[in-house]
Amino acid sequence: MSEIPYKIYLSESEMPREWYNLRADMKVKPAPLLNPGTLQPMGFEDLRPVFCDELIRQELDDETPRVPIPDEIRKFYRMYRPSPLVRAYCLEEKLGTPAKIYYKFEGNNTSGSHKLNSAIAQAYYAKKQGLRGITTETGAGQWGTALSMACAYLGLELKVFMVKVSYEQKPFRREVMRTYGATVTPSPSDTTSVGRKILAEHPDTTGSLGCAISEAVEAATATPGYRYVLGSVLNQVLLHQSVIGLETKTALDKYGVVPDIIIGCAGGGSNLGGLIAPFMGEKLRGERDYRIIAVEPASCPSFTKGRFAFDFCDTGMICPLAKMYTLGSGFIPSPNHAGGLRFHGMSPTLSQLYHDGYMEAVAVEQTAVFEAAEYFTRVEGILPAPESSHAIRVAIDEALRCRETGEEKTIVFGLTGTGYFDLTAYEQFNNGTMTDHIPTDEELAAGLAGLPRQPE
Amino acid sequence: MSEIPYKIYLSESEMPREWYNLRADMKVKPAPLLNPGTLQPMGFEDLRPVFCDELIRQELDDETPRVPIPDEIRKFYRMYRPSPLVRAYCLEEKLGTPAKIYYKFEGNNTSGSHKLNSAIAQAYYAKKQGLRGITTETGAGQWGTALSMACAYLGLELKVFMVKVSYEQKPFRREVMRTYGATVTPSPSDTTSVGRKILAEHPDTTGSLGCAISEAVEAATATPGYRYVLGSVLNQVLLHQSVIGLETKTALDKYGVVPDIIIGCAGGGSNLGGLIAPFMGEKLRGERDYRIIAVEPASCPSFTKGRFAFDFCDTGMICPLAKMYTLGSGFIPSPNHAGGLRFHGMSPTLSQLYHDGYMEAVAVEQTAVFEAAEYFTRVEGILPAPESSHAIRVAIDEALRCRETGEEKTIVFGLTGTGYFDLTAYEQFNNGTMTDHIPTDEELAAGLAGLPRQPE
Repeated sequence: MSEIPYKIYLSESEMPREWYNLRADMKVKPAPLLNPGTLQPMGFEDLRPVFCDELIRQELDDETPRVPIPDEIRKFYRMYRPSPLVRAYCLEEKLGTPAKIYYKFEGNNTSGSHKLNSAIAQAYYAKKQGLRGITTETGAGQWGTALSMACAYLGLELKVFMVKVSYEQKPFRREVMRTYGATVTPSPSDTTSVGRKILAEHPDTTGSLGCAISEAVEAATATPGYRYVLGSVLNQVLLHQSVIGLETKTALDKYGVVPDIIIGCAGGGSNLGGLIAPFMGEKLRGERDYRIIAVEPASCPSFTKGRFAFDFCDTGMICPLAKMYTLGSGFIPSPNHAGGLRFHGMSPTLSQLYHDGYMEAVAVEQTAVFEAAEYFTRVEGILPAPESSHAIRVAIDEALRCRETGEEKTIVFGLTGTGYFDLTAYEQFNNGTMTDHIPTDEELAAGLAGLPRQPE
Repeated sequence: MSEIPYKIYLSESEMPREWYNLRADMKVKPAPLLNPGTLQPMGFEDLRPVFCDELIRQELDDETPRVPIPDEIRKFYRMYRPSPLVRAYCLEEKLGTPAKIYYKFEGNNTSGSHKLNSAIAQAYYAKKQGLRGITTETGAGQWGTALSMACAYLGLELKVFMVKVSYEQKPFRREVMRTYGATVTPSPSDTTSVGRKILAEHPDTTGSLGCAISEAVEAATATPGYRYVLGSVLNQVLLHQSVIGLETKTALDKYGVVPDIIIGCAGGGSNLGGLIAPFMGEKLRGERDYRIIAVEPASCPSFTKGRFAFDFCDTGMICPLAKMYTLGSGFIPSPNHAGGLRFHGMSPTLSQLYHDGYMEAVAVEQTAVFEAAEYFTRVEGILPAPESSHAIRVAIDEALRCRETGEEKTIVFGLTGTGYFDLTAYEQFNNGTMTDHIPTDEELAAGLAGLPRQPE
């Protein structure tokens, strides 16, 4: 076996030619999306006014295991992929652990995160359908940036509704999107009826992701030649993000490395679902076992404190119901939580897998996350996004456990992106003013009390 | 010949084991540094109070062509190198040019630029000498960030004097440095006598690079176990940066590609000198000819409007005299010039080569640079630093010329870094409020009138 380099780069010919649809190997499939009024499953025609045709097909397809990646998407992937799988030699050495640590680094593109893997796919199918443009919402801005980049490449119009507080506090994110040619509107805005209604009722609101989703959906259905796209949670997104895990597995296989533990941060589940896809596939087919750990923030603990139930994906309650681990669509994480991962729910696919015992979940507190982020920055050189740092925290904890036990476990984690646009949070940490808020039992109960009527 | 991939990554075993010292192949060597009082060349002992011993040896060595890269530096290089040499297929296609365009992308590390290549080397030699720490200045912040990253890795203290206006306007840069553990002081400060003097005379000053250099040098000489380091201009920096060109040449050689034109932006010359090193070596030895183009901002045109003379490297006039193309150490580029490349002088090595006709220089205006940057962002996906975008501008211009003539020239340019911390400038461009100021003949004459007494 040749020595493992610091960074394993696949050649372009080794890059995946197909995405992997994890659902095809699940014995219990994720529940279908339901119409919130009738509680009936939503089919292709029900979803067409809002979503692109091909993306709906991918969303509803629980059977096809391998989906060819269209040539034009593969061409775009080659601009920034394969992403490196890094052997964290420096981190191992500083920790003094016998564990072998690898991370798949998805921040090596201008959008700064893994979101681009699905953004280019969704933009491609919109373009192929002959659409003029698409709409979306963005909170912290990773998704909006990725989609702007993809739309610029394909010559597709893009309207981004950006949560107003982020629009104002993250002007750099906004300018990246504008440089890519996107229209960025602070939400709530007076460009939609739902925005105007909210502004009339709450003129001083700084906005929310739920409100931005509502505006984006309205703008998509009200503008001829437009559809709405979403960057996480959905099955189609996990399908596109499987490229992360497929590359990771190919790279490990080349060197005969078999991971013991696979760790990823989880907000809506797009990164985790993509990273674990082929490994979970082996597990589902009974070919091999892995410990798979989802890491979520203690301030927004969908897996560890949520309920597995049908719920709205948006706080505006206009989207279909998805069966998932949820804190209730009215649950809003404390504003002093700096990173992303603020979504009240979780990917229905991952929720089903967690429910069926195929993976673990752990919640970590913000200060511990930033301690790990700072340590990692100094040792491995990369400034991680706060989201990614949740996975770093647990990877370090597992490696330290190996130091105690002497076990030479192989740990793989997902480093989803860079923290260049999160330095206000780093500043708080550097100044010792960072805090966190763990929701109380009362706050959790209040969120769950807002769950919609469930089917029989 | 196999098809050329989008990104050529060398394997770790193909990475350079030696830096290349361009001066060894120069018939006319760059002039030595002079003592500004005596106008006599400064030797090893003269420079020891300020600089690290080994770095002085490298600075003064015009003879040794190949300098082994120490193992610990090579280990650090493997964390972020080899950097990709990208074939700009997308850019070629959109431009409709028969030219073949390649760029060496040095922004794929957290410091965001090529500066890290010399930062780790300088920090390493300081550590090896048993020093406690080092000082430096930073303007836009690329160098300070790179050095912070290197010092964190080696466990070396670092004091950065950051031009006050940048300290306040670029808080994110400051926080990255702090996250790496550096002490960042806005300059002028009350921590040095030169800073206190300036503050007493000009309490409202927003600082300058020259003042920050003076403070950093004073802090280095006044603190036991400290030395001062500099990120550009010096021969030693070009030596370390030769890793850029060596990797580029190895990657091109693998595919049998011979460039016709090599383009780099030039402020102090660290990137350009590194990128062109092995190609210029061939040219100096008469083995092969290349067109080599330095690109500078029209607002700070050292090569194209400066004089080849001895001058101070700092505006405070406390540093040695270097023979270089200079606009005069009192010349200050207009504040509405957004990017870096604001240095009044130029690497003595590159200056001598330019003087001897081995390379060309061209000055470009800021708006044209940002037009190229925005175009490149949308087509190639990478948000470039304003500095790097000077090279993009001229690469695009040369490619468009090929479209007219039908020539299939091979163009290589240096993409030195990313623009994540320069979005205020992008915002100006996006809003149509960006302007530039080309110095008038009177302003140029005033700068040159401040040149010091020249040796006979």
